[in-house]
Amino acid sequence: MSTWQEIAAKKRADREVLLSPFKLPESELPPPDQLNVYDFISSGGADSLLLDKDKEITEIDDVDELAAKIAAGTYTASEVIRAYIKRATVAHQLTNCFSEVVFEQALERAKFLDEYYAKEGKPIGRYHGVPLTLKDQFNVHGVDTTLGYVGRSNNPVTDKSKEAVLVTIFEKEGAVVIAKTNLPQSIMWCECNNPLWGLTVHPRRRDFTPGGSTGGEGALLALKGSVMGWGTDLGGSVRIPQVFNGGYGLRPSAWRIPYEGVPVTIDGQEHVPSVIGPMTRTLNSLTSITKAVIENEPWKLDPKCIPIPWRQELYNETLAKKKFIFGVMRDDGVVRVHPPIARTLDQAVERLRAAGHEVVEWNAPELHAELVPILNKFYIADGGEDVKSDVNKLGEPLMPYVERMVNRGPPISIPEYWHNMVLKRDFQKKYLDKWNASGALTSTGEPIDFILAPGCPHTAVPVDKTSWVGYTRVWNGLDYTTTVFPVSTVDREIDALTEEQKAYIPRNEWDEANWPVYNPDTMHGLPVNLQIIGGRLAEEKTLAVTKIVEEILQGL
Amino acid sequence: MSTWQEIAAKKRADREVLLSPFKLPESELPPPDQLNVYDFISSGGADSLLLDKDKEITEIDDVDELAAKIAAGTYTASEVIRAYIKRATVAHQLTNCFSEVVFEQALERAKFLDEYYAKEGKPIGRYHGVPLTLKDQFNVHGVDTTLGYVGRSNNPVTDKSKEAVLVTIFEKEGAVVIAKTNLPQSIMWCECNNPLWGLTVHPRRRDFTPGGSTGGEGALLALKGSVMGWGTDLGGSVRIPQVFNGGYGLRPSAWRIPYEGVPVTIDGQEHVPSVIGPMTRTLNSLTSITKAVIENEPWKLDPKCIPIPWRQELYNETLAKKKFIFGVMRDDGVVRVHPPIARTLDQAVERLRAAGHEVVEWNAPELHAELVPILNKFYIADGGEDVKSDVNKLGEPLMPYVERMVNRGPPISIPEYWHNMVLKRDFQKKYLDKWNASGALTSTGEPIDFILAPGCPHTAVPVDKTSWVGYTRVWNGLDYTTTVFPVSTVDREIDALTEEQKAYIPRNEWDEANWPVYNPDTMHGLPVNLQIIGGRLAEEKTLAVTKIVEEILQGL
Repeated sequence: MSTWQEIAAKKRADREVLLSPFKLPESELPPPDQLNVYDFISSGGADSLLLDKDKEITEIDDVDELAAKIAAGTYTASEVIRAYIKRATVAHQLTNCFSEVVFEQALERAKFLDEYYAKEGKPIGRYHGVPLTLKDQFNVHGVDTTLGYVGRSNNPVTDKSKEAVLVTIFEKEGAVVIAKTNLPQSIMWCECNNPLWGLTVHPRRRDFTPGGSTGGEGALLALKGSVMGWGTDLGGSVRIPQVFNGGYGLRPSAWRIPYEGVPVTIDGQEHVPSVIGPMTRTLNSLTSITKAVIENEPWKLDPKCIPIPWRQELYNETLAKKKFIFGVMRDDGVVRVHPPIARTLDQAVERLRAAGHEVVEWNAPELHAELVPILNKFYIADGGEDVKSDVNKLGEPLMPYVERMVNRGPPISIPEYWHNMVLKRDFQKKYLDKWNASGALTSTGEPIDFILAPGCPHTAVPVDKTSWVGYTRVWNGLDYTTTVFPVSTVDREIDALTEEQKAYIPRNEWDEANWPVYNPDTMHGLPVNLQIIGGRLAEEKTLAVTKIVEEILQGL
Repeated sequence: MSTWQEIAAKKRADREVLLSPFKLPESELPPPDQLNVYDFISSGGADSLLLDKDKEITEIDDVDELAAKIAAGTYTASEVIRAYIKRATVAHQLTNCFSEVVFEQALERAKFLDEYYAKEGKPIGRYHGVPLTLKDQFNVHGVDTTLGYVGRSNNPVTDKSKEAVLVTIFEKEGAVVIAKTNLPQSIMWCECNNPLWGLTVHPRRRDFTPGGSTGGEGALLALKGSVMGWGTDLGGSVRIPQVFNGGYGLRPSAWRIPYEGVPVTIDGQEHVPSVIGPMTRTLNSLTSITKAVIENEPWKLDPKCIPIPWRQELYNETLAKKKFIFGVMRDDGVVRVHPPIARTLDQAVERLRAAGHEVVEWNAPELHAELVPILNKFYIADGGEDVKSDVNKLGEPLMPYVERMVNRGPPISIPEYWHNMVLKRDFQKKYLDKWNASGALTSTGEPIDFILAPGCPHTAVPVDKTSWVGYTRVWNGLDYTTTVFPVSTVDREIDALTEEQKAYIPRNEWDEANWPVYNPDTMHGLPVNLQIIGGRLAEEKTLAVTKIVEEILQGL
């Protein structure tokens, strides 16, 4: 039997063979100490590999726009898939964002789609020829689903019917999977490193993390190596990478998007469920692909899915409304946000008010602090046994963040577990009651429509420096729908620390871990995203209001 | 400190004081050895207490019809509530169906409603003055919520905001709670007995059980002591009493009806969740009160509720459809149904076919057998600790059925618990796939629309003789919406045992426990209900198709 090192080395070597036809020569890559490679491809660094048309195709940020061009015959599916394979491979060379690649299958499928188009004179589905990438957690035919464990290698999905339902749906719509992307060992961390595929880095600061757990996807989308990505989110894993990379992400409420065919750590822990969410380069793409999944009636394929059809009228009604009431949550009471986040939120509030919307302060610090231990208890209720059994298969090392998590204490009992469910439900009730009571804060007496909040308490940070995911995780505990979207970027001058900020004394260990990480120089130019929270199963209206807000905040 | 016996005696004595103004003199009651008291009130036995108008009012089976008469001024709320209090009290004298009563509050509320009506010239809501009863699990202001434990006595709901959300909604609609009804200790049994309130018996056979766990409600509705009841259903607890008593019941899918404010045994076990369901004397009532709850947007009050509005168009579309495909499940492969059930189902199939519907055989014995141990594992995952802690408060005796349940084994671990979740999900997926694949059985190639099945494998049975709840519980495991409704009655001649049936050798211990219980003589005249299963979150269409089927089966 092979060691974990041998297995990992073999898998990486096998992947090299698949990548090699599409790689940029090493000599043309930027030097390893060049931290910012964000513009490398766009500004011509990969031109020996990427034809003008390849760049033209991959610079189209929107899925619908790309699909329309393919449907109109402007590009063939093969051209699009080949262009993306090349660009994605360079993105991988720059950031190590892939796990498995399925280029051959993708090119074959593209050929099939082109033949279909030639014969039928129309596209096969709404995303005919559009590339698709997925976190290495979705079952894709022919390759492993590793969750970042070497121990899950060499166990490929051989039965087409075991593919993720989401993959089945997008295949039906004509989209083409080209690769799966990197994630942290066990999934349960907001950065991106594991003993199998190694560390994924941030395209704008290669000493920074792209976030996680869907970090490979975040880096790949930022470099335009994909146009439609899917991740999973248990505490922010779809949103954090999109916040760090300035992309768009949606955390739907649980069971709106099918999880069937997506293996997960601590499977069966469905009480704060991991949910699947889309990651894209435009807001329209986010809406389009969410709608596409739901219009395919996933509840007919996944028994957990709730049969709520796509509510276009709710989306339209929201878009047509002239005035909303936002609760702005500037601080969760646990960890203070870094200056660029606070500044962006302040500016956003001003702009929203100027545009006629009402914004009231939304503070629930006692509630946010209360939820953290409840959620933690669910994640490690088994005393880390699930994670340990995976790493023990081959003796691969526990990554330090995993080690911290799984060694936090012994397993709990069933009565304690059930009690934790009750605490969570009570928390959800208190939060709902608070929301309902917010009419006391507003001019009309009506409760707030949405919460506007930071995406994270910071922008992207150096590798190993993320700590507090409370700004995303609280909404998992509540199962509220949220979007994240790019609003601004860090400016080393505007966002320089004030005297008050320099003298700030952190409130607690998490605040202490976060505050000193801020550095306006190293973070200059990094994206600042905000988050909009719409309540439970509120995907249509949250996506619609994000469109309204994004238009108002344009140019911040 | 008092003993459990003293506390129970005191509570019963206190209740007697409240009942006494409305009781029929003991001397006028039928003798204890008169088993069938079903017609006692209707045929004049309680006429010294019930005025003609009282009987007229309480003989109206339908909530909408009763509400319309009150809204039109035909009856006052006070008249209706007083009539029901009287009839319910006699029903209680006949079957011991009450737990707590709230007559004084009810009469006060009725007075308030009459004043409101006089002043405003219109009813306060859609059920202005209509009485309402609830299983002793719903929080009602001023009284205990015992779950059949003496140990939960003397802890009344003092905070109005802690009342069940369902009670809040119906109060808003003008309905008036008059009493809560009996249930088994711990809830977790399909009969109706506990050390606090004692044994509830069947109105048609007082040596038989009315079923459970919502048994008091079943007996009370059968005797027309209520017109709208609510129970909870974890394995059949709404349906079984309605099957035994020939009433109507709905098991909605989880989180459609608000559970907030309803304490439950093993609270936090939300993986095969107990759900709230309505119990009524007409099908229209069942639909009306379900619709009323949902139209009150319970998700704004209960964070677990799914925000699916009442889909009237889906209800109407189903009603308008001319042809359905039913899968008939004649046998779950574990326990053979008693002859009257098999006969009724056969006749129903004939009638449905004659009316132009398609009926195919639906067999999934391997699946039904597979689910049982999975569900059992959830119920006693704590090794019975939750139940034991309740009985140990005062040392009250464990009822035998509870004892059997809680002493089945030690608690399981969290990994085992999570694994059980995965098994349940796999089961749900297999069942859904089987349903989707049923087009292979049908003439059109379309999958079946509904499953038609027995309500239970038997009619009402002697006390302590129920055993197999697989015919109801499988749908809890799947979270499918089902209705039960009366179709026929046992006939000692038609349903006499054939030679084949007499020689039948049971398949297993459950079948062995069930088969010999059948007795066409003692069971003569007992109702036979059927069950229609509509899939997940399919309340509107399941209620609609039940209306169609009921019309076709009229007079069986």
